[in-house]
Amino acid sequence: MSEVEVTMFAVERLSEFARRVFEQFGVGESEAAEAAEILAQADLRGIDSHGIARLHAYSEMLEQGRINPRPEICIVRETPGTATVDGDNGLGLVVGPWSNRLAMDKAEGVGTGWVAVRGSNHFGIAGYYVLEALGRDQLGWAMTNTTKIVAPMWGGERMLGTNPIAIAFPGHEEPPIVIDMASPAAAFGKIEMAIRQQKSIPEGWAIDKDGEPTTDPNAMADGGAMLPLGSTREAGGHKGYCLGAMIDILSGVLSGANWGPFTPIFTTDFEDPPRTVGIGLGHMFGAMRIDAFIDPDEFKRQIDDWIRTFRKTKPAPGTDGPIIPGDPEREAEVVRRVEGIPLVAAVVEDLRDVSRMTGVPFD
Amino acid sequence: MSEVEVTMFAVERLSEFARRVFEQFGVGESEAAEAAEILAQADLRGIDSHGIARLHAYSEMLEQGRINPRPEICIVRETPGTATVDGDNGLGLVVGPWSNRLAMDKAEGVGTGWVAVRGSNHFGIAGYYVLEALGRDQLGWAMTNTTKIVAPMWGGERMLGTNPIAIAFPGHEEPPIVIDMASPAAAFGKIEMAIRQQKSIPEGWAIDKDGEPTTDPNAMADGGAMLPLGSTREAGGHKGYCLGAMIDILSGVLSGANWGPFTPIFTTDFEDPPRTVGIGLGHMFGAMRIDAFIDPDEFKRQIDDWIRTFRKTKPAPGTDGPIIPGDPEREAEVVRRVEGIPLVAAVVEDLRDVSRMTGVPFD
Repeated sequence: MSEVEVTMFAVERLSEFARRVFEQFGVGESEAAEAAEILAQADLRGIDSHGIARLHAYSEMLEQGRINPRPEICIVRETPGTATVDGDNGLGLVVGPWSNRLAMDKAEGVGTGWVAVRGSNHFGIAGYYVLEALGRDQLGWAMTNTTKIVAPMWGGERMLGTNPIAIAFPGHEEPPIVIDMASPAAAFGKIEMAIRQQKSIPEGWAIDKDGEPTTDPNAMADGGAMLPLGSTREAGGHKGYCLGAMIDILSGVLSGANWGPFTPIFTTDFEDPPRTVGIGLGHMFGAMRIDAFIDPDEFKRQIDDWIRTFRKTKPAPGTDGPIIPGDPEREAEVVRRVEGIPLVAAVVEDLRDVSRMTGVPFD
Repeated sequence: MSEVEVTMFAVERLSEFARRVFEQFGVGESEAAEAAEILAQADLRGIDSHGIARLHAYSEMLEQGRINPRPEICIVRETPGTATVDGDNGLGLVVGPWSNRLAMDKAEGVGTGWVAVRGSNHFGIAGYYVLEALGRDQLGWAMTNTTKIVAPMWGGERMLGTNPIAIAFPGHEEPPIVIDMASPAAAFGKIEMAIRQQKSIPEGWAIDKDGEPTTDPNAMADGGAMLPLGSTREAGGHKGYCLGAMIDILSGVLSGANWGPFTPIFTTDFEDPPRTVGIGLGHMFGAMRIDAFIDPDEFKRQIDDWIRTFRKTKPAPGTDGPIIPGDPEREAEVVRRVEGIPLVAAVVEDLRDVSRMTGVPFD
């Protein structure tokens, strides 16, 4: 970020703005507050691409009637440990928390709960949902499919989304291990950043529109595709493809949502898919009561030991050694609660545009 | 394989030998048959490292009393949707199927079942378990932790196993999608093969004993470590580390087994871990009734569409385009059922050694 000019904003101010914007579009009071909270969490945790920077895209989708501000979310199929939810084309930031709570409620009842969701939209950071589970002494899982942008291994075009998976494990004295990872080799935000800075990208991140490997971020953006984690067949790119496919099928196919290249767009910058194979976008939430498997105190003490053991790993030369998943986000949060959220000029301009669109004052 | 001399063996002959060897060590009749069947499935599916080639290691562990041939497997904690199983230090090939069936039984009851397992040993190919679930119209998940051999991102030593995850999705007219992947960049079997052929390995697979990147397979084997999927920080190696950590914690910590660098050895070729933090080796099995989420026929028709859509992906230049996870294993099986299982001389010699050890005739 050091090479890009930023302005600092208090997280409360951004969150309050987002809340009022969602309300202005007709989103219910408590739903708007939680949706704004999810964006704030992303900004606090340093996941800039999924925070307030997304408000413009959500606003456009709401403005155009492409997202339903007042969904009647319903359960379309159910067992004691599972459910399929139809989000009635609501905000993912509303349908997601509703469905995640259902998974946790089911886990209270029978030890574990799994909820597949269709008829939803972009749900923000996957990490938000699994942090919620920690508050109930549960292990939360969150997955979602997203608009196509990644090529399968040996493919020359976009077929899968960046399809993230998240899961968190609480420690006793140590902070939780929080895994929240997308399935391509690199985040799309890094490619956008390279375009803005007119820099090249590393090999293994992307292909161009002809399917050839490229280090030009514009060639990726201009009809190319991102590569799955592993990048090449030799280095395990088929495994990144498998991971993306697994998340796509659990989120998209099992719920009756759209999948693969037919997953709906989350911003009007993208073209609509060529056909519809289900209802909206899909998620999958899982919840497991820790005490359904083991004494929670014992589990947390072991996680402390796990964390301390891995921190003591012999470092690779030239590094400070392994970090624990969730470290960078937690460290960002400490800084950003004090110093504020850094926004680049383009995002600030987007927020002013949202302000004009909705009449909610930003300055 | 083309550069290494092999001898072909009918799968039935190998499977019958393994069954009799397990029985000779005192494993019960039906358990020995299923254990042999799991090895045969690995050989048929082309996963040579996990088939009959492992019989020597299992035999040594049984011979030395390090594996209990007649375990009293028991449930130590239970809810309607979950269980924790203690495998009483039995063969993973016995404890695994028992626990996987329990997960499927629980899914029959409440829609989904999750079983964490401790006190087990190496359970063979993860893919076996998820194929079993297909026969019950369920989606099966299988994970296990394994002896340390992989470095975490920025680590200079072995801390995690190759920790695989498997899941399968049935089609209607198309064969199932079968995902069965380990979490490092490359399989250890490929490094062993490079040693045997005195070839170098690609960058991104391994580090040497000083934690430096190496292309010398001997430098990896001699106190070095494998790298997680993604290989470098730039190319997403932290995500491969996260995946390995997730599987380690679900299999090892949640069950009360050993985890990370303390995971027990699966062959006497390795040194015992420096301390014990739990009971034996751990697995995690999940099962989801398809009809708990969606009409199974509808699901399978969508999977057919998914498979056909992905097969039609524009190929990357110089390739035939993406394959579907499970294709290579299924194609291997067609050939190997007819032509037999190719075994290298070292494996045949190992089997003769097992024959001498047990008195079960091999020739």
